[in-house]
Amino acid sequence: MKIGFIGLGVMGRPMAGHLIAAGHEVFLHRVKDISQHLVEAGGTALDSAKAVAEAAEIIILMVPDTPDVEAVLFGANGVAEGLSAGKMVIDMSSISPVATKDFAARIGEKGASYVDAPVSGGEVGAKAASLTIMVGASEADFDRAWPLFEIMGKNITRIGEVGAGQTAKVVNQVIVGLTIEAVAEGLLLAKAAGADSAKVREALMGGFAASRILEVHGERMVNETFEPGFRIRLHRKDIGLAMEAAKALDLSLPHAASLAQMMDRAMAKGLGDKDHSAIFALMQEK
Amino acid sequence: MKIGFIGLGVMGRPMAGHLIAAGHEVFLHRVKDISQHLVEAGGTALDSAKAVAEAAEIIILMVPDTPDVEAVLFGANGVAEGLSAGKMVIDMSSISPVATKDFAARIGEKGASYVDAPVSGGEVGAKAASLTIMVGASEADFDRAWPLFEIMGKNITRIGEVGAGQTAKVVNQVIVGLTIEAVAEGLLLAKAAGADSAKVREALMGGFAASRILEVHGERMVNETFEPGFRIRLHRKDIGLAMEAAKALDLSLPHAASLAQMMDRAMAKGLGDKDHSAIFALMQEK
Repeated sequence: MKIGFIGLGVMGRPMAGHLIAAGHEVFLHRVKDISQHLVEAGGTALDSAKAVAEAAEIIILMVPDTPDVEAVLFGANGVAEGLSAGKMVIDMSSISPVATKDFAARIGEKGASYVDAPVSGGEVGAKAASLTIMVGASEADFDRAWPLFEIMGKNITRIGEVGAGQTAKVVNQVIVGLTIEAVAEGLLLAKAAGADSAKVREALMGGFAASRILEVHGERMVNETFEPGFRIRLHRKDIGLAMEAAKALDLSLPHAASLAQMMDRAMAKGLGDKDHSAIFALMQEK
Repeated sequence: MKIGFIGLGVMGRPMAGHLIAAGHEVFLHRVKDISQHLVEAGGTALDSAKAVAEAAEIIILMVPDTPDVEAVLFGANGVAEGLSAGKMVIDMSSISPVATKDFAARIGEKGASYVDAPVSGGEVGAKAASLTIMVGASEADFDRAWPLFEIMGKNITRIGEVGAGQTAKVVNQVIVGLTIEAVAEGLLLAKAAGADSAKVREALMGGFAASRILEVHGERMVNETFEPGFRIRLHRKDIGLAMEAAKALDLSLPHAASLAQMMDRAMAKGLGDKDHSAIFALMQEK
């Protein structure tokens, strides 16, 4: 199949690589030295998002944030200018659920369909083709995109209509961020009280406090090793999406709001490029 | 072995029952109609905590809160009056880690040893003899108490010296409570955004948001069924212990403090005897 792939960052490079390796004809935009290997593997470099949309049947985006998606889609020489009826845009970036619905409507005006399919699993999951993919799409569009998702991920769920994938991703980031904060408060208390926090973590893994966060990030807190992993700076962006959605929905998310404040403070203190478990280090400071 | 058991509530009855069934000679205090079956099974009812401490070699406490433990130990006709050198007190209640160290020191003056061994797993775990037991004790005292723990629980960990068991339990309650709040914020956002929260929960169970809380309490929130389970009223007591410990240790636990406020509001709104996952119901109210 003719596939466009725009956004060749730390996530996009291995994802595009898997599509090429699976035998698809992949059209790339913004190929740099670091992504030149994708051309050598069989990808085709084109000089605009518009050209990619003209050449491909399905165009995948994997860019940092909402404004980047908007620019790639609707900027000069953007995807929208190259689209025609029957084509499909799949946005795998993690962006605003609210903006996603707007983008989908504008892409729909071209006769093309729109799927939001943000992922979790990070660089490791992207390389191993084991990403969790949360999809917002009509059932027909989901079926059409499925063979591509299968090449890049493992745990693939259609959450609902367009926007639902981004909603699920934002929900994921809220729960992950707040669970990290929960584990940090707990292990800080253990340590301050003079208990062996490694043993506390171990005992708690047998009960209702058990979580992937207590297992993985709890261990980082016990050892106080905070190399990323997933950077506070990036997680802060996602909590911002949650706060934006909450405002649009007249919803109060008090602990997510507090977490955003903690993350801002962590960044101001130079912890922005540490793993998100470094919230523990911030809270531990006198 | 001659064992005293004081505190025949919803947890204590099955725990004492397991000790009797295992062939121990068990001395009971405050036997009522609802605990009469323990006497029929072979237990001996005595009319004071002092008498229990005189008759038994190891005295187990399973009462509601810190003041109850203090009254049973040091009140008139209390355990301390009946203790002699070489005996052991095991407090399996969930109480203040700070007060625990004080109680242990005062019991130590009698030549007796003190072990704190709070549990998690609730009524179900008590009946099934599958409680998680978090122990604060010297190694020698832990070894001496071990055969009794094995009769009542499964996941038994010595966290450290006296007080460490209560610390671990408080840490557990902080992490469980805050993870419930985290899942509630996430699933509220999913629902408000119009996503199918059951599908969001399912998709998230495959990634870093996965936890026992998302699994069990997340399902309660999706179905909005909040019968206990573990009551908000009881969890509030434990968060109070965390706040007390934090104050004593000059530690700030901002989300635990906020959760205490939410739980107070839930109780004021008549949700105190609902499951702790009913924090979702509180937050959902307009």
